[in-house]
Amino acid sequence: MNHGSSISVVTTISLILSFLPLFNLAQDYGAVARKKWLDQARVNKPVLHERLIKPVRLGILKKDTNAFQGWKVETSVAVDSLYQRGFKSQSGVIVDFGEHFTGYVSFSLAAWGRTPDAPLRLKFTFGEVPSELAVPFEPYSGSLSRAWLQDEIVTVSEVPSTLTIPRRLAFRYVKVELLSPSIGYDFKLTDLQIKATTSATENVASLLPNTSPLVKEIDRVGLRTLRECMQTVYEDGPKRDRRLWIGDLYLEALANDLSFKNHNLTKRCLYLLAALSNKEGYLHGTVFERPEPHPQEGQLLFDYALLYNVALRNYYKNTNDRETALDLWPVAKRQLELVKSYLMHSGLIDYDRAAKEIWIFIDWKDGLHKDVAIQGLAIYALKQTYELAKSLGKEHELAEVPEMIRKMSAAAKQHLFDKKTKLFLSGVDKQISYASQIWMILGGVVSKQEGAKIVNTLIAHKEALKPGGPYLYHYLLQAMIDCGMKDEAKETMLNYWGAMVEKGADTFWEVYDPADEYRSPYNFYPINSYCHAWSCTPVYFIRKYPEIFQD
Amino acid sequence: MNHGSSISVVTTISLILSFLPLFNLAQDYGAVARKKWLDQARVNKPVLHERLIKPVRLGILKKDTNAFQGWKVETSVAVDSLYQRGFKSQSGVIVDFGEHFTGYVSFSLAAWGRTPDAPLRLKFTFGEVPSELAVPFEPYSGSLSRAWLQDEIVTVSEVPSTLTIPRRLAFRYVKVELLSPSIGYDFKLTDLQIKATTSATENVASLLPNTSPLVKEIDRVGLRTLRECMQTVYEDGPKRDRRLWIGDLYLEALANDLSFKNHNLTKRCLYLLAALSNKEGYLHGTVFERPEPHPQEGQLLFDYALLYNVALRNYYKNTNDRETALDLWPVAKRQLELVKSYLMHSGLIDYDRAAKEIWIFIDWKDGLHKDVAIQGLAIYALKQTYELAKSLGKEHELAEVPEMIRKMSAAAKQHLFDKKTKLFLSGVDKQISYASQIWMILGGVVSKQEGAKIVNTLIAHKEALKPGGPYLYHYLLQAMIDCGMKDEAKETMLNYWGAMVEKGADTFWEVYDPADEYRSPYNFYPINSYCHAWSCTPVYFIRKYPEIFQD
Repeated sequence: MNHGSSISVVTTISLILSFLPLFNLAQDYGAVARKKWLDQARVNKPVLHERLIKPVRLGILKKDTNAFQGWKVETSVAVDSLYQRGFKSQSGVIVDFGEHFTGYVSFSLAAWGRTPDAPLRLKFTFGEVPSELAVPFEPYSGSLSRAWLQDEIVTVSEVPSTLTIPRRLAFRYVKVELLSPSIGYDFKLTDLQIKATTSATENVASLLPNTSPLVKEIDRVGLRTLRECMQTVYEDGPKRDRRLWIGDLYLEALANDLSFKNHNLTKRCLYLLAALSNKEGYLHGTVFERPEPHPQEGQLLFDYALLYNVALRNYYKNTNDRETALDLWPVAKRQLELVKSYLMHSGLIDYDRAAKEIWIFIDWKDGLHKDVAIQGLAIYALKQTYELAKSLGKEHELAEVPEMIRKMSAAAKQHLFDKKTKLFLSGVDKQISYASQIWMILGGVVSKQEGAKIVNTLIAHKEALKPGGPYLYHYLLQAMIDCGMKDEAKETMLNYWGAMVEKGADTFWEVYDPADEYRSPYNFYPINSYCHAWSCTPVYFIRKYPEIFQD
Repeated sequence: MNHGSSISVVTTISLILSFLPLFNLAQDYGAVARKKWLDQARVNKPVLHERLIKPVRLGILKKDTNAFQGWKVETSVAVDSLYQRGFKSQSGVIVDFGEHFTGYVSFSLAAWGRTPDAPLRLKFTFGEVPSELAVPFEPYSGSLSRAWLQDEIVTVSEVPSTLTIPRRLAFRYVKVELLSPSIGYDFKLTDLQIKATTSATENVASLLPNTSPLVKEIDRVGLRTLRECMQTVYEDGPKRDRRLWIGDLYLEALANDLSFKNHNLTKRCLYLLAALSNKEGYLHGTVFERPEPHPQEGQLLFDYALLYNVALRNYYKNTNDRETALDLWPVAKRQLELVKSYLMHSGLIDYDRAAKEIWIFIDWKDGLHKDVAIQGLAIYALKQTYELAKSLGKEHELAEVPEMIRKMSAAAKQHLFDKKTKLFLSGVDKQISYASQIWMILGGVVSKQEGAKIVNTLIAHKEALKPGGPYLYHYLLQAMIDCGMKDEAKETMLNYWGAMVEKGADTFWEVYDPADEYRSPYNFYPINSYCHAWSCTPVYFIRKYPEIFQD
């Protein structure tokens, strides 16, 4: 996700400052620890694994109303066929690397007959999915920088030459076009390759032998998605936005714990986020590694700040790295102040005020009312943080939290649950959404049995606002599993992620709406990321719950 | 000039092979000497002088029907104004480097407020003249590679960055556009510079103090043109074609002899051309330095091959470098075989056959009949080569040449001169052209007095085919001077080169037709070269004939 344009700043929150020794209250909440945290982030920066990858074959781009977004790439001849002929007659060729890679592309040109006596102008268009090769990028109507689109025009002054395109690219397919009509000579493309990078290792345990082919495929695509997003941080997407977001970090770490087990990457990301918290000690939703580590200034996210605590607890559970957990405990504790600062006497979060002051994400879904979801998510985060505190012997620092949880849960049930529809309703227009039910279940506001009833009611309710993308589908699956709805969870995965696989996904997408393949939160679907971290979690579910997903 | 598409090959010439010890007759005419010649070219390769140049001001591009090609750049504020504001509002800015430079452009970007969270896409358009910044390059109708046009799109992945555009560029003006609408952030362009290169030194003797301002300006622009074209060879143009042509070499060397005096560059070029002659010993009209020295295969030019001899004689006269002249003498001698091979019993060159087999350039002028001009040029070259032979004590090797000159001159007067019009007429339709008269005069077919009459008749003849560009204007000036027509020569220079200066030329152009500023031999005037070696010779005339041009 990318929310570059609307920046909400927590400036008016009246904070109840706690007495944490690591924070300098007067100036900068994290000043004392910040340098140490940044050092920890630095020393845990992974060395990227590099592999030189050659394309496997050529492809033929075809319009096909049955294909994802109306385009497919059909398998054609081996790539040698490209190299063994003059390029002029092949302009527009589609080169297929066989799977998704992230890294640096280089290519070589050689004379074909006479040495060209003029420069050449080549255009490379890189696609994670076929439509990116087919849809013109101009006129551009998107709301994010057009420069994310992966087309590069290169002037080659002389032949032979080997050139590297300076920007990092993420793709499976490349379209190569000759933009300069070459007069009296031809040339050859003799090599095209990518130096592919990832911080994921390759030794992932196999699934159980009887696992269904579709689950195996979902897992393979999920692993590939995760692997591509694992660079020197957990990126959200290697094409776009190429940065660390708390929400993606948490889901990537869940999947990593059961696959690549690169726990140091999780550690680095937790430290980096901590080091770049604002002067009040609150975490930014997203941070950048370059040119120097820095946050997206002002971009605080309520739900993401709280999910950091869940991610930290998860890290500790999986690694038993008590030192890191203790180091970062003050950060987790500090995020709870966000809940307190918006908590009303009623036990409900003051959503109207919060929504004005801080970004509440929950899901990419137009028109979604998030008051119920944030209430549930806050309760969930409070519980997780309290569990973390207990495991660190710090529960005395959260003495008020159990009562907060009780009061917020009771308020949710009393004020947000509708006895008639038997669902949680949000907003003044009593909206029925998956998001609301999911987070009330995950927050444990309802019992397992109540949760299962709610999910069944929800499924039957055709007008309910469905999840907008893979990110919330993750929490839907988790909610179903928490309610014991194993079959529904499996069916949901097979229907949702399975559909992406069946539509040819090599990696899972940032946005996938089964009812609208062209949906884009950025008003231009080619700018969507088609390899997006937050959609990788089948890797986690399949391994965490083999009894559900592995036959 | 660039004649990339129509390659004439001398394949059918029946050669009278002479007995030159340096040539291996069976296989390769120059095999024995070729390696030595290439070594000589290599050791004389100049080290380029590099200077870091910053732009001086911004410009405003304005449509103006009185300006050259309808566009001018008006002087605006100092360049600091660009660097001290965010770039977003300045997209499309014109940056003026004050004069023409050739080299490698780099630029730096920095944050302006928040660090950008997305890549940037910038387009740079480089112009030798204002119209290149104004005329859209697409749709492209030119007959040469579109890649010569100097526009580059650069994706900048992160800020701050300093980037260098890989291709070498030649320009005075740069237009910089932001192609990606940047969302929620701005940035600064903090530096733009060129590492300018030339093999010309700067210590050129001043003109006489009383020289008129216009002559001084013509000289300044001519020197700048020459300086820009002097790189590791005499290039024809630093924007296009960036290669050594014999015709340009000769004119550049003339100007260099009286200005920068970089005689080693002339030596290198003479050796390079010799080393890359074809197996029959004939010179290619143009050769390339990279990737390895190689000729434009098959591109033999009748007139250029002969002008090599004139250039060699000129080099020897100016340097007294007898070793080089003797080394390359066999090459010069060999070129005369071209004349012999086309010479008919009548003493005329068999133009119809020659024109089918070999490129005869003379001038860029549509419809020009070149039979008379090539006859005159051949006589001129024979005389020059004979003078060279005499100075080397080799006239015995050219025993037949004086009789050839006599016979060819007589034939020209008898068959080509029209007593009625008192002009040389060419082609079956009796064409009257400057080219024909010029080369008959330079060839000495007519006396000084006859020549002056011819020129006067020609000037009075409004339908006469005028020179197509600076290249033939050079020979026109020389012909006038040879006929003692000093005033006419001066007037021609002031009218022709002076007009370019008055139209704002920073360097002299490849093509300039006072009657049609949009003329292009390549069907797209922005692809013309606007800094072109063959137009630099006012530098030579002004210094060679101070009594004519310096008051």
